[in-house]
Amino acid sequence: MGGSARDIARAGAAAPAEAPDEALAELIRLLPGAVLAGAEAVEPYRRDRALDPAAGVPLAVALPTSTAEVQSAVRWAARHGIPLVPRGAGTGVSGGATAVAGGLVLSLERMREVRVDPATRTAVAQPGLLNAELKAAVAAHGLWYPPDPASYEICSIGGNIATNAGGLCCVKYGVTVDYVLGLEVVLADGRALRLGGPYVKDAAGLPLTKLFVGSEGTLGVVTEVTLRLLPAPPEPRRIAAWFETSGQAAAAIAEIASALRPSVLEYMDRTAINAVEDAFGLGLDRAAEAFVLAGSDDLDPAARDITAMVEAFRRHGATLVEEPSAERGAELAQARRDAIPAVEAKGRLLLSDVGVPIPELGRLIAGIERIASAHRTGIAFIAHAGDGNTHPLVFFDPDDAAAEARAEAAYGEIMTLAIDLGGTISGEHGVGKLKRPWLEQQIGADALEIEQRIKDALDPQGILNPGAIFAAPAR
Amino acid sequence: MGGSARDIARAGAAAPAEAPDEALAELIRLLPGAVLAGAEAVEPYRRDRALDPAAGVPLAVALPTSTAEVQSAVRWAARHGIPLVPRGAGTGVSGGATAVAGGLVLSLERMREVRVDPATRTAVAQPGLLNAELKAAVAAHGLWYPPDPASYEICSIGGNIATNAGGLCCVKYGVTVDYVLGLEVVLADGRALRLGGPYVKDAAGLPLTKLFVGSEGTLGVVTEVTLRLLPAPPEPRRIAAWFETSGQAAAAIAEIASALRPSVLEYMDRTAINAVEDAFGLGLDRAAEAFVLAGSDDLDPAARDITAMVEAFRRHGATLVEEPSAERGAELAQARRDAIPAVEAKGRLLLSDVGVPIPELGRLIAGIERIASAHRTGIAFIAHAGDGNTHPLVFFDPDDAAAEARAEAAYGEIMTLAIDLGGTISGEHGVGKLKRPWLEQQIGADALEIEQRIKDALDPQGILNPGAIFAAPAR
Repeated sequence: MGGSARDIARAGAAAPAEAPDEALAELIRLLPGAVLAGAEAVEPYRRDRALDPAAGVPLAVALPTSTAEVQSAVRWAARHGIPLVPRGAGTGVSGGATAVAGGLVLSLERMREVRVDPATRTAVAQPGLLNAELKAAVAAHGLWYPPDPASYEICSIGGNIATNAGGLCCVKYGVTVDYVLGLEVVLADGRALRLGGPYVKDAAGLPLTKLFVGSEGTLGVVTEVTLRLLPAPPEPRRIAAWFETSGQAAAAIAEIASALRPSVLEYMDRTAINAVEDAFGLGLDRAAEAFVLAGSDDLDPAARDITAMVEAFRRHGATLVEEPSAERGAELAQARRDAIPAVEAKGRLLLSDVGVPIPELGRLIAGIERIASAHRTGIAFIAHAGDGNTHPLVFFDPDDAAAEARAEAAYGEIMTLAIDLGGTISGEHGVGKLKRPWLEQQIGADALEIEQRIKDALDPQGILNPGAIFAAPAR
Repeated sequence: MGGSARDIARAGAAAPAEAPDEALAELIRLLPGAVLAGAEAVEPYRRDRALDPAAGVPLAVALPTSTAEVQSAVRWAARHGIPLVPRGAGTGVSGGATAVAGGLVLSLERMREVRVDPATRTAVAQPGLLNAELKAAVAAHGLWYPPDPASYEICSIGGNIATNAGGLCCVKYGVTVDYVLGLEVVLADGRALRLGGPYVKDAAGLPLTKLFVGSEGTLGVVTEVTLRLLPAPPEPRRIAAWFETSGQAAAAIAEIASALRPSVLEYMDRTAINAVEDAFGLGLDRAAEAFVLAGSDDLDPAARDITAMVEAFRRHGATLVEEPSAERGAELAQARRDAIPAVEAKGRLLLSDVGVPIPELGRLIAGIERIASAHRTGIAFIAHAGDGNTHPLVFFDPDDAAAEARAEAAYGEIMTLAIDLGGTISGEHGVGKLKRPWLEQQIGADALEIEQRIKDALDPQGILNPGAIFAAPAR
């Protein structure tokens, strides 16, 4: 991500808000050794993994190492009315970290300390820490931080908080917000707010901590988080099931999700299976229409959950149901995680994140198959199926403008379909800048207006991540 | 609570905001058969279980039966600038439902429908439904709604949402907010907002649903909620332990909480034990300084958690550690639930709800013993100890003004002590009107100012539950 560059030249192509030369010089004085400027230096910070072609060229990138430096940068941006885009590891797929022309990218990549406290079973982490680094730090104390985005090895805790990230284990263990006990947040005016702490329940005042989780950097910049940890759960027993139709798989999933508490319940369609097989050669069944990986970490000596899962898969017509070895089970879970990069090898991705009530899963899949066919675009379908959160991966040849247009049309129709099925345009990736056109359709004009009031109350200048969730103010 | 009265007379002693006669007549026309007025009719609605002596005499009580009627009442209040206090079952202990002089009490007691959907494993409930009624409705489908305030038989779901209520099971299963997937909320201007729905993960826009849970009726009136359900867990195995000192009990609890996932971990001190014994004669050990009830519902065939709990209790000097029969275990859990009414029989209560990081539990208990002694007031100590959320029950003779003043001083000092120990003034009961003087001390002036901005953005007239969380605006 080019974080080692130190090119402190002038800004390049951007059209910054006002007096960019003086403002930039001031920023460099405020944050010595922590500002990148110039077209080449800022280039690696213009886009996240959404690769938005409309990304602007920022005036500069700031790389603070402390809350005080974040405050300096935010105060500088507020003083000059310069838009500010907080950035974690740049792995977001909704364009939540897409740079704004003439703005500041505030990268938290240098803030990655972590302190584990086994007595309160909490960890205090800085936002640039990677999810995998957190997991490793707490594992050294025999503890576990559950949220596990498929990208956990490369995504940051700050980014996880920004989007309220989920993952494979969330079907049983919940999402990021369920583990955030406290936050330090730098507000749009530069004040640092400390919320919550290493205690579990808190009903004192409005639930501000929860409001910031999932706010995608539009209300403040998270500079520290206190996270709740759990003892590591037992190794799950896993069941792999293969189906000839998506409808059978969806019906089995709905039955399991309504009756049991699986610790994992994942889905891949034939396109995803074949992409993974092409990339990694794991011996998956290329002819299957659907692959479901279920698991349970309940220590029931009668293995009731495992037995019930196997029965549900068989009853709904699975062609093969097997309990893999622990090693093979972990490999299959990794195959599911690797589906996104595997499909990425087939073309550029528009990565959907739609969620539906679980009984609608079958209709969602069927609808997406129709959309793929109507728009002659590839769509691989993978899902955290047990909580109805799905990732239709629309892929296309980036050198084919017509194919790109068809893919974009499909991407939009998938969101409309999810809304029509009573679901959401985002389960765990956030709205960012890419999905904003569909947000009002889902939540309604009244809810959006209320959200805008909160945004205006906390960021009256509209400098924090303009264009994400909310329309950028006219400048 | 006198909900059957129909005395539609004029308001009594109150000094309503403006033109009360005409306003009241208009309200009665808007909500025929659903308005109580007159000092006698409104009397049962002036106070919740906090029994605040400063409760005002409201102009009227509205008893809507639908969202549309709630909207009518709110629009009426907004039009006339009349303060409005939403009310569930009136079991709150922080004065969150204390009536405001000349205002409207909006009682949701007639809105108590519930619809269970096993396919999505959700229930859609109206706010007046009692927690126990919800539990029964979902149990008929083999499902479970976890949050279990000790008052679950008499408290309403709407009230639970207002305070983000917890209970005994929360140490493993979380609090109300963890089960709220969707809401219908009537805003201060009368619009009804629908948020979320029967799907598990949602990252689309700001997390408004979470913002309303725990907002104590200061941002809107919840008229419907979509709740996540779980399969009923196995019957727990329970361990009862008795200690000669609170410090030993606190140390054992801290050890268990840091290493295991108990499904219950409760505490009663000698004063509470004796009050329960006086009231119910269950054969508890009156001489013990502390009683701890732990439990696990993990189906580990090796019973590792149960074994580890027993060992922790013994290592920390418990005088008796026993596994009661399932029946006796349930009786002991009920004894813990009944501690509040049992202590209430000793005098009037000021019911604290302070939380601390779990390792501070011992210091909290010791400090409370000092406070009781210094102020010569009775304090029974009970706790959801496994999550550090405690209920010091300050009790006093209501006919002794000096004793009442000493009790109030103790009540305040308990909150200051919790803040000094890095904790919170409320874990699950909310701030209401009684704890507002301590809120800024805990969360700080900046956080309170940000909360006030949100309040002002959503309720610019300040008509929603004035005095709860936020200072009432001058009128």
